Order: sequence, then structure tokens, then C-alpha cells
Amino acid sequence: MLENLETPCLVIDAERMDRNIQAMADVISQHHVKLRPHAKTHKLPSVALQQIEAGAVGITVAKVSEAEVMAAGGVTNIFIAYPLVTASKIERAIRLSEQIELIVGVDSLAGAQQLEQCASRLGHSLQVRLEIDTGFRRTGVLYEQATALAAEIALMPHLRLTGIYTFRGSLLAGKPTLDVAAAGQEEGTLMVQLAERLRAQGIAITDVSVGSTPTAASAAAVEGVTEVRPGTYVYYDRMQARLGLCGIEDCAGSVLVTVVSRPSADLAIIDGGSKTFATDVQPGTDPLQLLGFGHVMNLEDAFLVRLSEEHGMLDLGPLAQAANLQVGDKLRIIPNHICSTVNLHNQVIMQRGDAFEHLPVLARGMLE
Amino acid sequence: MLENLETPCLVIDAERMDRNIQAMADVISQHHVKLRPHAKTHKLPSVALQQIEAGAVGITVAKVSEAEVMAAGGVTNIFIAYPLVTASKIERAIRLSEQIELIVGVDSLAGAQQLEQCASRLGHSLQVRLEIDTGFRRTGVLYEQATALAAEIALMPHLRLTGIYTFRGSLLAGKPTLDVAAAGQEEGTLMVQLAERLRAQGIAITDVSVGSTPTAASAAAVEGVTEVRPGTYVYYDRMQARLGLCGIEDCAGSVLVTVVSRPSADLAIIDGGSKTFATDVQPGTDPLQLLGFGHVMNLEDAFLVRLSEEHGMLDLGPLAQAANLQVGDKLRIIPNHICSTVNLHNQVIMQRGDAFEHLPVLARGMLE
Repeated sequence: MLENLETPCLVIDAERMDRNIQAMADVISQHHVKLRPHAKTHKLPSVALQQIEAGAVGITVAKVSEAEVMAAGGVTNIFIAYPLVTASKIERAIRLSEQIELIVGVDSLAGAQQLEQCASRLGHSLQVRLEIDTGFRRTGVLYEQATALAAEIALMPHLRLTGIYTFRGSLLAGKPTLDVAAAGQEEGTLMVQLAERLRAQGIAITDVSVGSTPTAASAAAVEGVTEVRPGTYVYYDRMQARLGLCGIEDCAGSVLVTVVSRPSADLAIIDGGSKTFATDVQPGTDPLQLLGFGHVMNLEDAFLVRLSEEHGMLDLGPLAQAANLQVGDKLRIIPNHICSTVNLHNQVIMQRGDAFEHLPVLARGMLE
Repeated sequence: MLENLETPCLVIDAERMDRNIQAMADVISQHHVKLRPHAKTHKLPSVALQQIEAGAVGITVAKVSEAEVMAAGGVTNIFIAYPLVTASKIERAIRLSEQIELIVGVDSLAGAQQLEQCASRLGHSLQVRLEIDTGFRRTGVLYEQATALAAEIALMPHLRLTGIYTFRGSLLAGKPTLDVAAAGQEEGTLMVQLAERLRAQGIAITDVSVGSTPTAASAAAVEGVTEVRPGTYVYYDRMQARLGLCGIEDCAGSVLVTVVSRPSADLAIIDGGSKTFATDVQPGTDPLQLLGFGHVMNLEDAFLVRLSEEHGMLDLGPLAQAANLQVGDKLRIIPNHICSTVNLHNQVIMQRGDAFEHLPVLARGMLE
């Protein structure tokens, strides 16, 4: 029973998760585009396999160590969407590519040369995709420099440049208006145009990979896009709900907490703070205007306004005060950002009806 | 060699740590006050034992699970400075109190009744301290209600109320001026006055426990304070340096990262983001006015201005641009808040001269 779980803990509503997995697979398959979910949200091989079962071609990760955990868990097709630039990591990736279908990201000449040297030394070839910056100013070669860099990589004998990819999901968070459909269309169009330019140069680009949870559906509708990589949709979260991409009732992940103190009428202290709720999506961030660090279920004017490491401070409005919370009461709170919240938890509790399964988050904390 | 470590990783300069441990022990012992460091910063039994070796009476933790890990690592005197309000946790604490000297926090009548019932059921007594809110509005009974609550707890046959404690370290962060000496003196004075009032009621308060890293020294100077509980000083961090409590050269913890992309002259991308650097102390927070999520060593106008989960975006000023950073270069960055950063890392690398020891952070991620 939920009430018997030790708190704080992260509970996943498996039925909501199942629906989210199927709904995204259905939407993307209608466009005859491949779905390669980013595993950063769940960090669980078992959930990755469920996504693949539902139609995904494979998964996306950011780190070699994550790819190793996912491969050990039975995932056989992985894209490391991150530039690998050090020999030790590249060698690990090459070893992994002997066992599974692996693609790695590249975004610079120096990085490509490292990949080429390691692959050559080990007598292997590596499938690579070129990352393009379409405006987020993160990794990715500048759009206008992409054709020149692609031409150099295409000449490297141990690298097979088969695709291009971009990420601009978080670009949306800074925009005053949130037209995610237009954003996805723009992202897809920019990348398809670039792919055509590269093909005109004689580079056989087969994969045009774009999209995050906000833009996946609209980007998939662009003719020429071949793959999308949404991650958060598997659980959704308060930020995605605020963006209008789901209802709060679609959010599969919530943190179960206990009220540990009621020092005054307008204040309740819970046993989860910044070690339990991620703080990378801060309250008040425009245009999300999130009130507090999570959505308190069934207490509409209770706001998680402050966190210290082990304490969460709930500001109680009139309705929440009327609920007369007691020390020992349990609450469920949907975090602002589920991906980074999952990363704080050694385990999640997968709830399916009355069954609670404790799952170690196997790819949690994989930094290398 | 540092250059050979896989990145990102958290490196602890053991010589700086040794100095920090000894310096705090010396300052506090001059006042004939007990030192009970909060282990939340290092989360390592081996470092806790080193603090005890240097003179600490025991340690402080926030969770039963942390106490269990510390006890398993050889620590024999632990204060859980947190209200335990559920039977399962209280029972674990009672079991632990059979093996080590354990004190637990309490701050409400409901919580005290839970403690009393469990202790009675198991036929044990528990040593408790009453937490007082001295202005931070977190856990802690309101100052003016403390005497009434203490009187009720003192009547409970299985609880031994031997002390009072408070925390207001983070109160400082919101203040326009940062007179930490005055803050520590005020904190100590408030608590000593309360202890005297309780003794006048016939409650034998022997421990008056206060102080965090900012206020430990000044609070220890107040006649009647018996114990201080600083945590961060063991490694220090950028926030403490900004508060003037240490120099940046006293900070023992830094994150080693690799430059993975140089998309433009003013931008370098590193392989650590919000999974690597804690985001609970945000840049720009008054009055700290921290520029970015960490202090980049040896590159004075490089600022870690944005993080996504696996990417850190370094904004490079003229001097940093002149340094001509290359893909593959390593940098060291002192995080804003070391405690929550440690919590993100499965291991730390303890560097002592040329020796690098990989230490699993045994009490990391202990939420329950």
C-alpha cells in the first residue's frame, strides 16, 4: 500500500506510463518516422525495452556509461547523442559497438579526428551523426559551418557519417510565446534543408534526427525528417503540463512525502528537499511561471516554495489550511522536472494497481 | 595523474580538507565547546572518523539511513537532527541506539508521542533534543511555544529530553548584509536564554546545540552554548568563500571537466551540467551575486552561465578567449554548493599528493 512506503520516494504510475509510451509511438508512427526515445528520463533498461516493444527503433543516451548500462540490460540499438572527445571513452564506445548497433555524435573537427584515430587504431569503423546547432547555443557545429565540417568527416576512412541531429527543446523555455508546433516545424525544416545540401555534396545522409517531447509530433510531420528523440513524455512532468503538452493527470511520476512538522497554520514541512526534488527548473521561470518546486496533488493552494537539502517548505493557502494537515500525513507531489528528479533517486517504486515494485534506477548518476 | 581521470568527476584535495578539519576543531575547542560536524557535506564515514580523530564528539546527520551508513562505517556517536515521525523510522533509530550513542530530534507533540509509543513498545528509552525555530521558518517548534512543548515531552517516560538545537545558517543567505559574527551571537544567545528558562522549569537541559559553518565560531563564543554543528567547512565551497568564511584557495572540492565543444569564440561546452553541478544555489542570488554555477579555476572571466543535464555552457570573456581552449582540454570548477554537489556523485576522487583514491560516497542519496 502506498501509505506503507518509506518516504520520500519516487512513485511511477505504470498505467499512465504505459499510455504515454503508446500514445507517442502512435503519433510518430502515423508520420512513418522512427522514434528513438531519450532514456535520460527513466534511466531504466526495462522501460527502454518497453518503448522498443511499442515501436521505438532504439534509444538515445548522452554518456558511454549510460549506453553500457542499457546494453547490459538488453537494449541493442543505441545512439549516444553527445560528442565523445577522449580516447578512453571512444574506446569504450567502440568495444560496445562490437556487441550492439551504436551511433555516436560528433560536432567538431578535433572530435572527429579523435574518433577516427581511435577507430583506426582498433581496426574498427564507427557510425557517426553530426550535431547541428539550430539556435540553442549548446553543443553542435554552427549551422552555416556544417557543410564544411561534414565534408571533412566524410573523408575519414573509419567514420561512417550517416546522419545529422539537433536539439532545441529547451530553447522553448526561454520564449515569450510557446508555439511548439511552429518550433517543431522550423526545427525539422532547417535540418531537412541541411540534409539536402549535404546530399548534393555527395554525402549519403540517411538520418535526420530532431525533436524533443515538445516538438516531436510537429517535427515528425515535416517531410524528410526520419527520426525523433523525445524523452520526458514517458513520465511527463509539471513543466510539460504547463507547456500544454499533457494534462497534470498524465504525469506518471510523483514524489510521496510525509509531513514532519506543522510549526504554524500556514506552514507544513515535508521530508523532501533539494536532495529529493530537482532544482534545475526553478519556480517563477518565464514563461512557465511555476509556483513552487512541484504540484501538490489534491491541495490546490499548497505551494512548495522553499527547499533546503532535506526539508520542503509548503506554504498553505486557505483551502490547504482547511485540510488540517497533521504530522505524519502523506502527500504526493509532481516535480517540475522529472528527468533530473529521477537522477536524485536510487530507486523508483513502479506502481501497477496494488502492486509496488522497487526498481533500482540502473543508469542513475552515470556521469562518464 | 589528474589528466587521466574520466570526467566529469569530483576531486577532493585532501590536504585542504585536512587543514579545514583541523582549523575548525582548533577554533571550537578554544571555546571549550563540543564540535559535532554535519556529515551532509562529505557523506563519508572515513571523513567523519577523521573529524572525530581531530576532536569532534560525534557527527550530525538528517536521516536514519545516513545514521545507519555512518554507524556501519564505525561512527559511534550520532545526532539525527531531524524530526522522526513515522514508526518504521523510529524503530530503525531505536535498533541503532542499541549499538551506538544516538540522539534524535523532535519538534512537535505529535512527533514526540510517536517516539514515546515506539520506544515504549520496544521497551527502550530514547535520548531526544527539541528543535527550536529561531527565525528560519523550517522545522522547529516556534520559540515562544518551546517551553510548553518541552514540559510535555519531559513527562514522557521513554524519552530523555537532554538538549535543544536550532539551525539558521541559510537564514543568512537572504539577508542584505552578512554579519555572520552578529548572527552567530544572536543564535547562541536566544538558545542559551531558552535553555535557562527550561532549567527553571526543572528540565535538565545539558546540550545547547547551534551553529552552521558561517556561525559556528561566533556562536561557540556565547557562554552557555555547548555544541556547534558546522558541515560545509570540511570542503568549503564558492558560496562560503563569497560569504568571506574562507578563501577560494581553501575550497577542497572541485569538479574536473573536459571541454567537449568549442562552437564559437565566446563559448565552450563542458561535459558537466545539472547532473554534475548542484543547482540549488542559483547564480545571481542576493547578496551572493555568484556569477554562474561555479568558479572556473585559472580562467578568471569564464563563467558557467547555463546548464542542461549533461552540458555546461561556459561564457568566455576576453582573457578566457585568449587562453584558446581546445576540445579535450580539462578544467577544474569549484561548485557554488558542495554539499548538494557531492550528493550528485557516486564517488569522489580523494587526491593526496600524487595519489588518487576513488571513494564511493557511501551515504549519498540516502533519502529515508
